[in-house]
Amino acid sequence: MYSLEILADRVKGQLVNSKKISIRGLATLTDAQPDQLSFFANPKYLKQLKTTSAGAVLVTPNMVSHVKSAAIVVDDPYVAYATLSQLFDWRMPISSGVHSSAVVASSATIDPTAEICAHVVIGENTVIGANTYIGANTVIGRDCRIGQSSRLESGVQVYPDVHIGDRVIIHSGSIIGSDGFGFAQQNKQWIKIYQSGGVRIGHDVEIGASVTIDRGALSPTRIENGVKLDNQIQIAHNVVVGESTAIAGCVGISGSTKIGKRCTLAGMVGVAGHLEIADDTHVTAMTLVNKSIDTPGAYSSGTALEPHQQWKRNVVRFRQLDELAKRVKRLENAQFDKS
Amino acid sequence: MYSLEILADRVKGQLVNSKKISIRGLATLTDAQPDQLSFFANPKYLKQLKTTSAGAVLVTPNMVSHVKSAAIVVDDPYVAYATLSQLFDWRMPISSGVHSSAVVASSATIDPTAEICAHVVIGENTVIGANTYIGANTVIGRDCRIGQSSRLESGVQVYPDVHIGDRVIIHSGSIIGSDGFGFAQQNKQWIKIYQSGGVRIGHDVEIGASVTIDRGALSPTRIENGVKLDNQIQIAHNVVVGESTAIAGCVGISGSTKIGKRCTLAGMVGVAGHLEIADDTHVTAMTLVNKSIDTPGAYSSGTALEPHQQWKRNVVRFRQLDELAKRVKRLENAQFDKS
Amino acid sequence: MYSLEILADRVKGQLVNSKKISIRGLATLTDAQPDQLSFFANPKYLKQLKTTSAGAVLVTPNMVSHVKSAAIVVDDPYVAYATLSQLFDWRMPISSGVHSSAVVASSATIDPTAEICAHVVIGENTVIGANTYIGANTVIGRDCRIGQSSRLESGVQVYPDVHIGDRVIIHSGSIIGSDGFGFAQQNKQWIKIYQSGGVRIGHDVEIGASVTIDRGALSPTRIENGVKLDNQIQIAHNVVVGESTAIAGCVGISGSTKIGKRCTLAGMVGVAGHLEIADDTHVTAMTLVNKSIDTPGAYSSGTALEPHQQWKRNVVRFRQLDELAKRVKRLENAQFDKS
Repeated sequence: MYSLEILADRVKGQLVNSKKISIRGLATLTDAQPDQLSFFANPKYLKQLKTTSAGAVLVTPNMVSHVKSAAIVVDDPYVAYATLSQLFDWRMPISSGVHSSAVVASSATIDPTAEICAHVVIGENTVIGANTYIGANTVIGRDCRIGQSSRLESGVQVYPDVHIGDRVIIHSGSIIGSDGFGFAQQNKQWIKIYQSGGVRIGHDVEIGASVTIDRGALSPTRIENGVKLDNQIQIAHNVVVGESTAIAGCVGISGSTKIGKRCTLAGMVGVAGHLEIADDTHVTAMTLVNKSIDTPGAYSSGTALEPHQQWKRNVVRFRQLDELAKRVKRLENAQFDKS
Repeated sequence: MYSLEILADRVKGQLVNSKKISIRGLATLTDAQPDQLSFFANPKYLKQLKTTSAGAVLVTPNMVSHVKSAAIVVDDPYVAYATLSQLFDWRMPISSGVHSSAVVASSATIDPTAEICAHVVIGENTVIGANTYIGANTVIGRDCRIGQSSRLESGVQVYPDVHIGDRVIIHSGSIIGSDGFGFAQQNKQWIKIYQSGGVRIGHDVEIGASVTIDRGALSPTRIENGVKLDNQIQIAHNVVVGESTAIAGCVGISGSTKIGKRCTLAGMVGVAGHLEIADDTHVTAMTLVNKSIDTPGAYSSGTALEPHQQWKRNVVRFRQLDELAKRVKRLENAQFDKS
Repeated sequence: MYSLEILADRVKGQLVNSKKISIRGLATLTDAQPDQLSFFANPKYLKQLKTTSAGAVLVTPNMVSHVKSAAIVVDDPYVAYATLSQLFDWRMPISSGVHSSAVVASSATIDPTAEICAHVVIGENTVIGANTYIGANTVIGRDCRIGQSSRLESGVQVYPDVHIGDRVIIHSGSIIGSDGFGFAQQNKQWIKIYQSGGVRIGHDVEIGASVTIDRGALSPTRIENGVKLDNQIQIAHNVVVGESTAIAGCVGISGSTKIGKRCTLAGMVGVAGHLEIADDTHVTAMTLVNKSIDTPGAYSSGTALEPHQQWKRNVVRFRQLDELAKRVKRLENAQFDKS
């Protein structure tokens, strides 16, 4: 529970029509109760702003007149909402120490402020930094380094030789450092190429649930500072994901591809191997990126939604498209001959 | 081992040509042995029906004359097969109690009939209902509620504030309640929006292996009664999946989208965010749903399989399609001018 | 650390310009240091071959003149590199025995040479073969058989009645034997079809991280010898994956489909159910295989990458494609009438 003064102060906002209330949480304009704080960040919700029951609303200066309750005036209400959201997070303050059921190698170094939960396993020579939380049943191999104030939720698997920075969050079920998919072919048999590169993850990275990041073949796979990965993403060996790039769910990136900085890849995008994607590239959902991109901008592939019967006819025509183009060419030539 | 009388009784079927045999399991018409029961549900397998070695067959009344062995006559043999399949399931009756290696918070409430397997971790204030099974190495956070006669298989991760109904099955590796993918952008940096909504899962839901269901940003993500989810599905924050909808493997649903009731989404479908999909909508495999659907029916996108060389030519033409359409228009105009 | 003699001997190569050095690892031509071995397998890296600092290079006979350092001459440097990579793997020799925190059923049979790590759970009647490694927090159900010299990394979940061959690697987070997605429909409700088939996995198979392989409905799902599966692959019930087939990340294969031998499926391919795919079939990335393939070769679907604005115009035209084809037909007819 926070007073409006504390909340306004936290986002350096100006309090208007202040009231003596305690705020127990955040909510949308529609759902908010008198003990909740809401925010107005999208003009299309103006009607909801005027009728909300929220105890207070984060707004820009030009909209404050529409607020009937208390208001916290800020330049960017959405950023202010993000900033305040941490106050109401489900995570508890960490409770330092190693649970009696955890199995920690004698050569591992666990900062005394870190929290190691039940049934965690930590390998030889691994170092866990200050204020870092390792959730229940997570396994961390040997020769790993995990920085300060990071959080690995329950059931994460970290292979040997993975370095993870500070203030990193890794959600449950993610696998960091599994072998890259590398085989040489001999007499139609696959010969495994053992993968000796590790994984290097920078600071302020968030990795969603059930993400897989393979270790490099010879040198490490790299996730740079500030990268945000959604759930069920597959990152193959020796990929580099550039600083502050955000990748949505179910994206797959093939081996040795280098994604630039500040890119966004929408859901289910697939990126082929050995490509270079320019900084500030944006790729729309379910696009196949099958060549390098050297010019920043938005890119797409695929076709758009149609009723199934109509789609079936168009799909048949797609298979005849090269022939259709040739027929148009012949018509043009015939026309030219006549004219 | 069950007698034919017991099996017929279980599906309210009529026993024809009964024999004194014990049935040890179910099998297809082709594979079935004399101590197995089969079923005839697809006319194209008539020949197999006539030659099966099955000890007995589930059939409709009009097909019973083709059965040389015993038959159990029912209106819907496929439904009868589904009903009987539970008798031969691999799951054992649950064995009530908490394994000595489980770590259960003192404020958690575990029904005495529930089974809590080895290395399970259960958080504060969580409630586990009667006859519910929690498989080995599964982790359940605090403030969760799990109903009666539900099953979480081994290695499931449930975050705090997740409510799960009765008769729910969740397969291994699934993650329920991880943070939704929410960030505000400021100066080209991503600021995390902490996710305080939980997840609410109804009754009679089945969730496959390695499914991820994120917690809501402010209010919960919702999976309604009777929903069936296959493996490797990603459900983002604040999605609602309507009653009795079935979703096949590898589907991804983006944030705040509302899927209607009794829908089916085939494998690898992607659904964009903030959409509404009508009840009784069916989407074919690998379709991108990039706009709301307000009319029930079948929908598709994408193109169909072709030999690679032919596809390469057509794909080039696709990139020229707008230009091709304009050339056709010019030809039509020229024709019109002449006529 | 290995001498050049030992390494050359291991790949039956001829040592040229031998030096008394100890090799500590493998590296690319560009990155290699004087105590590392590199390889020249791609003509486009000739310049790097001439300038590498590697202590020695694996080369073909015709290229040895370009190597300034020591060389190991072999017929196929890439295969030789793969062969030697195992010497520098991150895996430690196994350390036989069962960790005190593991929970092993009394009727299970664990070979005394096997290593069972912390918090592993093994069910009744399961058999673990010689020199097999079961990583921390992995769960194996009852009635399973795991062969010799296999490795299940940490956090793998194996359901009851799964048989796994010799020299198999299964990476973290993979789920083997979860229920297939089978339901009969009655009065718009889904009735679960319990899945009594198990999973049978051959020898020399590698399975990546977060792969899901469902158990069969009545008979087992089958992964044949020498199959290689990348991460995040979904294999539905009763699928058969033929010998030495390699499947890249994020592929989904629907129920009862039979993939031939020596096939390759690129990333994010989706294969519909009840299909047969011929031996030696190759499918390009993000293709939807919606019909059986009886002729070996390469197959594709989808469209290629474009700038978003251009793509939007073409996508609109795609929805008019059937109509466009009819208009071209009318133009052709009109031309024919005139001529």
